[in-house]
Amino acid sequence: MQAAKTSTRRLKLSGNALRNRSSRRPTTVQASTSQARDRPHFPCVEAHAVRESRIRSSRSSISSSTTTSSHAGPEPAYARPSPTSYKTYHHDQPLPLSYSEPLPSVDIAYETWGTLSPAKDNVILLHTGLSASSHAASTDLNPTEGWWENFIGPGRALDTNQFFIICTNVLGGCYGTTGPSSIDSTTGQPYATRFPVISIFDMVRAQFALLDHLGIEKLYASVGSSMGAMQSLAAGWLYPERVGKVVSISGTARSSPSAIAMRFAQRSVLMADPNWNNGFYYDGLPPHTGMKLARQIATITYRSGPEWDQRFGRKLRRLSKSTEEGDSNSHLPRVPALCPDFLIETYLDYQASFSYPRLAGESFCLKYDANSLIYISKAMDVFDLTRPGIDELRLTPPQPRTSPPPLPPSMSSHPSSPTHSHYHWLLSHSKSHPPPPNPPAHLHELAEGLRPLSNTPVLVLGVQSDILFPVEQQREVADALRMTGNQMVSYYELGGVWGHDTFLLDVQNVGGAIRGFLA
Amino acid sequence: MQAAKTSTRRLKLSGNALRNRSSRRPTTVQASTSQARDRPHFPCVEAHAVRESRIRSSRSSISSSTTTSSHAGPEPAYARPSPTSYKTYHHDQPLPLSYSEPLPSVDIAYETWGTLSPAKDNVILLHTGLSASSHAASTDLNPTEGWWENFIGPGRALDTNQFFIICTNVLGGCYGTTGPSSIDSTTGQPYATRFPVISIFDMVRAQFALLDHLGIEKLYASVGSSMGAMQSLAAGWLYPERVGKVVSISGTARSSPSAIAMRFAQRSVLMADPNWNNGFYYDGLPPHTGMKLARQIATITYRSGPEWDQRFGRKLRRLSKSTEEGDSNSHLPRVPALCPDFLIETYLDYQASFSYPRLAGESFCLKYDANSLIYISKAMDVFDLTRPGIDELRLTPPQPRTSPPPLPPSMSSHPSSPTHSHYHWLLSHSKSHPPPPNPPAHLHELAEGLRPLSNTPVLVLGVQSDILFPVEQQREVADALRMTGNQMVSYYELGGVWGHDTFLLDVQNVGGAIRGFLA
Repeated sequence: MQAAKTSTRRLKLSGNALRNRSSRRPTTVQASTSQARDRPHFPCVEAHAVRESRIRSSRSSISSSTTTSSHAGPEPAYARPSPTSYKTYHHDQPLPLSYSEPLPSVDIAYETWGTLSPAKDNVILLHTGLSASSHAASTDLNPTEGWWENFIGPGRALDTNQFFIICTNVLGGCYGTTGPSSIDSTTGQPYATRFPVISIFDMVRAQFALLDHLGIEKLYASVGSSMGAMQSLAAGWLYPERVGKVVSISGTARSSPSAIAMRFAQRSVLMADPNWNNGFYYDGLPPHTGMKLARQIATITYRSGPEWDQRFGRKLRRLSKSTEEGDSNSHLPRVPALCPDFLIETYLDYQASFSYPRLAGESFCLKYDANSLIYISKAMDVFDLTRPGIDELRLTPPQPRTSPPPLPPSMSSHPSSPTHSHYHWLLSHSKSHPPPPNPPAHLHELAEGLRPLSNTPVLVLGVQSDILFPVEQQREVADALRMTGNQMVSYYELGGVWGHDTFLLDVQNVGGAIRGFLA
Repeated sequence: MQAAKTSTRRLKLSGNALRNRSSRRPTTVQASTSQARDRPHFPCVEAHAVRESRIRSSRSSISSSTTTSSHAGPEPAYARPSPTSYKTYHHDQPLPLSYSEPLPSVDIAYETWGTLSPAKDNVILLHTGLSASSHAASTDLNPTEGWWENFIGPGRALDTNQFFIICTNVLGGCYGTTGPSSIDSTTGQPYATRFPVISIFDMVRAQFALLDHLGIEKLYASVGSSMGAMQSLAAGWLYPERVGKVVSISGTARSSPSAIAMRFAQRSVLMADPNWNNGFYYDGLPPHTGMKLARQIATITYRSGPEWDQRFGRKLRRLSKSTEEGDSNSHLPRVPALCPDFLIETYLDYQASFSYPRLAGESFCLKYDANSLIYISKAMDVFDLTRPGIDELRLTPPQPRTSPPPLPPSMSSHPSSPTHSHYHWLLSHSKSHPPPPNPPAHLHELAEGLRPLSNTPVLVLGVQSDILFPVEQQREVADALRMTGNQMVSYYELGGVWGHDTFLLDVQNVGGAIRGFLA
């Protein structure tokens, strides 16, 4: 009896239990009320119900103040960026898809930085990662910091004095470009999981529809990190003559089983949330608990064990003063909580300490669309530039480019000896390592698949502490490209403990490599 | 319209949607019935509801055939091993706990192999990992294979011709030893989350209560892998004079933030399952969905990326014949499913291919107690043998042993020159590396904490592909032990791609190292 009482006392009780969970609770034989009152409760679990009740009350205040049509439910919990903060191109022609009949039309939302040159030859297409929006850096329309704020601007890695940079919101996302939350004109309802499964190639096709609309025939470069690196490689692959250079940072040419496993775990917890409702939640409550849990798993893959060792170690969260006073009277040590207790746990739970502008924690689970996460993470899983992967998609590989690599816009504006500069440029890029002498079989398949990129300069950059896109995958991309005969492969590996997130944080090294490659 | 229809057609529909999920679905504005009928559905999500309905119907058939008292609900979904398949010791004295007042009494369930010598000097205490039971190998009482079947027996790593092996079910578990699902005698109900938070030390204290009962004063060796390695080190630490040798395989002396992060993710998805009900589900439905999702995450940490590359690569599950025929008429490629599609996903989802006898997949989520998972994984997180960790627990470190290491039972039965053998033994174990010349600060803290083990022979074995207990943690245990002045540290690192699970699979190398160390 003593032990049970002690344990109850010491289980870090705080806040009030939410009694009203009946709508989500299965029917059970309930213990007597007095016993139920003594039960421990768990703030980390109650947080889900608190969030849900907050959403409900904000919904009811919206619906009581607006007239809702039969088709228009209350506002979605994820708020799209204001349509005034980006431009939108409505592409009213069919967009071909890898796995399905074309989408009849699509919207493509995008932002730009710098000035388009009269010859339209200074364009860099920047691709986003999974959950990032087109807001890579602040603009006049939207002065808040972007996710690559310090990489874009005058004199920065993507130099706005020199380049015109375009970043699109990705097909399948929820920031203005067509995705599962968009209205299907044939039903007047959001697509939800009636949206077709899409591929990284489909995302790139949508981007090039925008480039066509803008009259941009050739890109100076295609640049991306993480999933953006997949898009960047896919752009160079699909349109060899239209892409001058390719930058692939912490990406891959084919998703590995371990990366698929981590994304599968995220999709599983999300789809198991009863609110997900097979994807049809747009008139109801979003699967915010599943999103939160998925985000926690994802966050584990974005940094590295060594970083956590340095940053958190085994430190515990600070207890409130009253709790600590309570404990100091005991002859027993502080009792661990079953809810988050170590700093690493509170970091994953709240992500309050996330300082860089990727959508974080609570914000993420309410503002990002769950179906977008599912569709886009699936597109990453199925990405495969090996020859068998290309054949599976029934794609005919285009011929490698025959045109020479582009001159930097600053040089092309000086008519003096472009041939010599060009020659010099090629020389400086032909110092890359030779291909591996005895490559394993899978590298041959990848090299076969990457042949359309064999004449395109490619920068491959990886990070040794990355557990999501491990450095072995970076090496295999560089090696396979060299095996195609490509002599314009630049390859860098970075150290440090920031793992996959290095591309967001290491302006010095990541930015420097990009600047050098684009010059 | 075409795209939407196509997408619906191609979303791998199979099985019937379960309509009756109202008890778990929040109130939503429902679309019209005809529209709802067209909606895609997802077998991987429906599986949760199917399992729940299976549990419900098995419950109702049980309760209709039995008379239930007011306190006794239907059978728990997790079936304890038959009490006839193991022995149980009822310890009717208080068991001291690290964080709370003592438990007034505990049951300790255990199994044994081999024969106890008249001098009771041939005992090996084998510790289990998180979810394993005492059934390490087949016995007369229970002839099914155990989780270490090939490591225990005549001539095997734990040689039953020589040793008497005891394996207990762990405190906090659900296999007969007291845990959260046990009946609290003060309430007549299961403890649930009124069970006190426990430590690895508490588990070891329960084991030694059993040894006292059996009249076993000294162990020849304490042997464990994974969490069992933590217990093994803790046993040698708590009772230096009572533990002859310590074997620690793929364990750690202090959990790392990245291991805590992975277990935190598991607890989070489990505790978010509405069925968990703050731990009070014993009268209702268990949180089987949360358990399944937690298990998926855990499984990711048990193997390695290289193993999945070799074993699954990017292979897809085989489609049913009808689906394949359907697709072959299309000009489009096979559409990926949002439910598990890659073999790595089906492996994580079903674990049907698990051939070794750890509780797997479906079986795990129904047969293992969710609260046991929470309490035991928390005990792993808080395990910390550094000096600050020991001080936090207000433990007084015992003095290192003064008695010499034990002689092998076969030698002690031959009275010829035990002194010489002993000397020889010491020599053969003093060849270990010297301690590191310039150890970092954290190693000093660990060495300070490990001082009680400074005269105990310890085998530390790690696996280079282990991502849960990485090899750096194995090295730090061995280094810190050597820094205590311990000259009897044997240290091995294994290669291979089996990751953390190597200890279950690699009889040749793991078994060989143990056999050599125990001889």
